[in-house]
Amino acid sequence: MAELSERSGVAVPTIKFYLREQLLAAGERTSPNQSTYSESHVDRLRLVRALLDVGGLTVSAARDVLAAIDNTDMPLDWAFGIAQQALPAVAPEEDDADAAHFIDELITGRGWRIDPRNPGRATAARVLARYDTLGLGHLRDTAGEYLRAAEVVAAADLAAVAASPDRATQVETVVVGTVLGDAFFAGLRRIAQEQRSHELHNPTDTECE
Amino acid sequence: MAELSERSGVAVPTIKFYLREQLLAAGERTSPNQSTYSESHVDRLRLVRALLDVGGLTVSAARDVLAAIDNTDMPLDWAFGIAQQALPAVAPEEDDADAAHFIDELITGRGWRIDPRNPGRATAARVLARYDTLGLGHLRDTAGEYLRAAEVVAAADLAAVAASPDRATQVETVVVGTVLGDAFFAGLRRIAQEQRSHELHNPTDTECE
Repeated sequence: MAELSERSGVAVPTIKFYLREQLLAAGERTSPNQSTYSESHVDRLRLVRALLDVGGLTVSAARDVLAAIDNTDMPLDWAFGIAQQALPAVAPEEDDADAAHFIDELITGRGWRIDPRNPGRATAARVLARYDTLGLGHLRDTAGEYLRAAEVVAAADLAAVAASPDRATQVETVVVGTVLGDAFFAGLRRIAQEQRSHELHNPTDTECE
Repeated sequence: MAELSERSGVAVPTIKFYLREQLLAAGERTSPNQSTYSESHVDRLRLVRALLDVGGLTVSAARDVLAAIDNTDMPLDWAFGIAQQALPAVAPEEDDADAAHFIDELITGRGWRIDPRNPGRATAARVLARYDTLGLGHLRDTAGEYLRAAEVVAAADLAAVAASPDRATQVETVVVGTVLGDAFFAGLRRIAQEQRSHELHNPTDTECE
């Protein structure tokens, strides 16, 4: 186990915790105090840590995701759905009903059919309701452009998933990529906002379009 | 003050805190125990609360943003820059240097000139470095598409700002819209991912493109 810890960079007590929680299969016991771990253990260890630490999944949600990865009879988009739904989500509130209806219209207006449990639905509705409460408006006017941008990002995300070598890495890319991708996009958005603001307020000073 | 609290929905102890921190100007004193507050106090109160509660700004950052709003000699895109930079940001780490260089190349490759202090720069570099550490790759391949999507969202954001009635509301829209817009986009991204995954894995089942 000391060697597994060294090869994976995961501390021994953490490995013991994963074993106890059945997130990691036991190694092959070679003596009362010794087990052999394979390369697949190192990979699984890295995946479990990414799900819990980067993805913020609960242990029980991580267990569901791992089961989906291991069940190769399950269609891949089901496994993606399970990975998506395992991510921490906002709880919808009663006041969100009107905003949720707006989001649904936006989705069906594009001819999309989305699982009602898609976590993005509740998140988008919650934010929109909060925006309405602040009396700032405008987010509804821009929602269509936001969705258009989300389509561009989602297409890039799924292309990255397809480029991953195996089912486990693909699901890892879904979970880690979804969480980290949010922060990445947020960063690029601030950069693009500065550029756009500069273009709008100093039109003659702009070198490139 | 009780009336101000009722009209704004902000509790009296919170109003007292804002007054003490000079985020809100004192009312016009009409007797030792009574002051008169105008409609502009109600507006400012709503703005201060949005900056602190929704934007997550520190008191000192909120003070800078309010000063930028009040200084009408300041060009509007400077005020936007101050609002943007007031938002909580990630601290760059030494390991991010390579990722930061990649982000800079991406920006200059589009002919953009961005303030080195733009908080999105450090955020995007931090995420990219984290991604590299996980050995998942691919985020660099998709970064260009992410930036293209960020441009669409930023253009919509700035249009929403321009549609706001006055300087204070415009800056409020920058701060609140930037923070809430991140979460809104994250929600729509999950929706678009599900749709895209469905299209890829069930091509004959897709009704619309």
